[in-house]
Amino acid sequence: MEKQIAVIRGDGIGPEIVDQALRVLDAVAEKYGHTFTYTDVDMGGIAIDKWGEPLPAAMLDKCLAADSVLLGAVGGPKWDGLPGDKRPEKGLLALRAGMGLYANNRPAKLWPQLAAASPLKPEIVEKGIDFIVVRELIGGVYFGSHTTAECGGEQKATDVMSYAEHEIERIGRIAFETARKRRNKVTSVDKANVLDTSRLWRKVMHRLAEEYPDVEYADMLVDNTAMQIVKAPSQFDVVVTENMFGDILSDEASMITGSIGMIPSSSLGEGSRGLYEPIHGSAPDIAGQNKANPIGTILSAAMMLKYSFDLDEEAAAIEAAVNKALDAGLRTGDMMAEGCTLVSCSEMGDAILKNL
Amino acid sequence: MEKQIAVIRGDGIGPEIVDQALRVLDAVAEKYGHTFTYTDVDMGGIAIDKWGEPLPAAMLDKCLAADSVLLGAVGGPKWDGLPGDKRPEKGLLALRAGMGLYANNRPAKLWPQLAAASPLKPEIVEKGIDFIVVRELIGGVYFGSHTTAECGGEQKATDVMSYAEHEIERIGRIAFETARKRRNKVTSVDKANVLDTSRLWRKVMHRLAEEYPDVEYADMLVDNTAMQIVKAPSQFDVVVTENMFGDILSDEASMITGSIGMIPSSSLGEGSRGLYEPIHGSAPDIAGQNKANPIGTILSAAMMLKYSFDLDEEAAAIEAAVNKALDAGLRTGDMMAEGCTLVSCSEMGDAILKNL
Ligand SMILES: CC(C)[C@H](C(=O)O)[C@@H](O)C(=O)O
Ligand SMILES: CC(C)[C@H](C(=O)O)[C@@H](O)C(=O)O
Repeated sequence: MEKQIAVIRGDGIGPEIVDQALRVLDAVAEKYGHTFTYTDVDMGGIAIDKWGEPLPAAMLDKCLAADSVLLGAVGGPKWDGLPGDKRPEKGLLALRAGMGLYANNRPAKLWPQLAAASPLKPEIVEKGIDFIVVRELIGGVYFGSHTTAECGGEQKATDVMSYAEHEIERIGRIAFETARKRRNKVTSVDKANVLDTSRLWRKVMHRLAEEYPDVEYADMLVDNTAMQIVKAPSQFDVVVTENMFGDILSDEASMITGSIGMIPSSSLGEGSRGLYEPIHGSAPDIAGQNKANPIGTILSAAMMLKYSFDLDEEAAAIEAAVNKALDAGLRTGDMMAEGCTLVSCSEMGDAILKNL
Repeated sequence: MEKQIAVIRGDGIGPEIVDQALRVLDAVAEKYGHTFTYTDVDMGGIAIDKWGEPLPAAMLDKCLAADSVLLGAVGGPKWDGLPGDKRPEKGLLALRAGMGLYANNRPAKLWPQLAAASPLKPEIVEKGIDFIVVRELIGGVYFGSHTTAECGGEQKATDVMSYAEHEIERIGRIAFETARKRRNKVTSVDKANVLDTSRLWRKVMHRLAEEYPDVEYADMLVDNTAMQIVKAPSQFDVVVTENMFGDILSDEASMITGSIGMIPSSSLGEGSRGLYEPIHGSAPDIAGQNKANPIGTILSAAMMLKYSFDLDEEAAAIEAAVNKALDAGLRTGDMMAEGCTLVSCSEMGDAILKNL
């Protein structure tokens, strides 16, 4: 198989973690007889520095021309003072919208080797943490109008949150289909006791639930969900929610696994082209020091093989290689624990390559 | 001192927990020579049943005429099917707005006797959990326009989130003043990389931070905060945030203490009249069974004495009496643990009264 992958190294630790993922992709290509070619794309802070904007149109075009996109991380203190629409994050939002990626899939899965790193107590962790947050990614308050205006002698800011039925329905379908491949349970999160968008959300989800009678379905209020993720995470299989709630809850969910550096994510729309990235940030404090954990990015590459290219076996091989490196006690600084061996970013890459 | 208190028993376990709090208030009145009189107010489901709306105008007037308001809990499955503006919660929102209560104060404090009930692991709990979420309560998306309309052959729902400078400034001041009475640290939570309301929020908070140079100040993104509450809660002293983020984060914060049934809250505006209520819900599943934990409501009554009536000594006496009951190993079902004595709602009330 020949595939062309747009590669966004981005800022901070982005370049070093992406490099390890590309080494792994190359090894997989060689072993299984595929050809992956890479196109460099500038996005985020580096694009601001080079081109004056976080996602120049030509860069978006490169992503749209590729078979899929791999991203490291964007942002950093250097660009924090810039106005809202000139910041690195804006590039990410523009990329999501430009590629039509409405379904963000963020697994919260405990790696048994890292169970001790979970902030939750063993009684809870033992019951298992293995769920997915399916977050709507190009609607809601993220993409409504944002205005700040003088009003009665002071400033007043307004953000608008909207959802149309078809936007809810398509993400809902992803959630139900995902649940069918897992443990058949969907929890839809909203704030229907306050928001009209949530009441419409709930109505559409209930309609879908009737179409998927084999999938167990429950509504949960967002405030209660924030509690339940900490109290009893084993109850969740697929959690589906709107953009802003998904941002907050998926981060909370990743934290309870104790292994943020390990978590990949996919963002998909219609068709097979997706954006794959680790859920962690650009960690400017350790950038360029060969200390970062490349596994979140390597597993993102595995997700790409599986979801965009249907290469299930290849994806599983990467996951197994990662598992083996953890079993051997290798740990980057972020997951270091007693009795384990501290390795650098590239050493972790070496080990995973060797295990392939 | 003579004070008139509006009492909203509400739905579910509301009446039974409020009754215990009134017994405690009466005992305090007798011991310290005060007179507290009570006016019953219908709000929530019971008001829908009796009067056809969750907060009849006459009921709001009773609250506005009182020196302060004590609330049990509202809501229940019986009223879940009603349209948005006819639901029990709407009564609570109308009460908050009608009384001008912009500052909601939700302590997340670990009771040492209940440390084992925290879902977090001991290494984290040992560092201490003792912070307050100061939540803006009558602005933001809760009180913007909510509309659902036909649009291009489908329904589209829209919620509007706004903040004006003065709304941010007044809640910010509460946070800084509160921090001065505690450990001198304010963490302001927003989503400034996406929302205009958050960018204005941050601007106003920075202006205030200059007025309070003795208070340590930090910004934190809401998604990161959802992680930090679980990972390292000891870092927080006063967390200040807008209405919706405050709803989510304060519930998450209460859960990590492991003792939701114990947590009181205050809602204040200009002047001393406030609304005091436990943060837990109406627990319809155990309503009327004399099983509920009355301590959240009893401590809410203590907060009222302190914040609305300046009766610090009396408030401290109630807190000490609660502490003694816990020390004696008395527990309602929700906090029952090995080696403790299971008591009913009224037995817990008896014990606290005896300790006064
Ligand atoms: C960088 C930011 C705009 C982004 C978001 O809020 O979506 C990030 O937090 C994420 O979750 O991918
Ligand atoms: C009942 C509901 C409207 C309310 C809110 O969201 O404010 C509740 O969750 C709370 O936090 O007091």
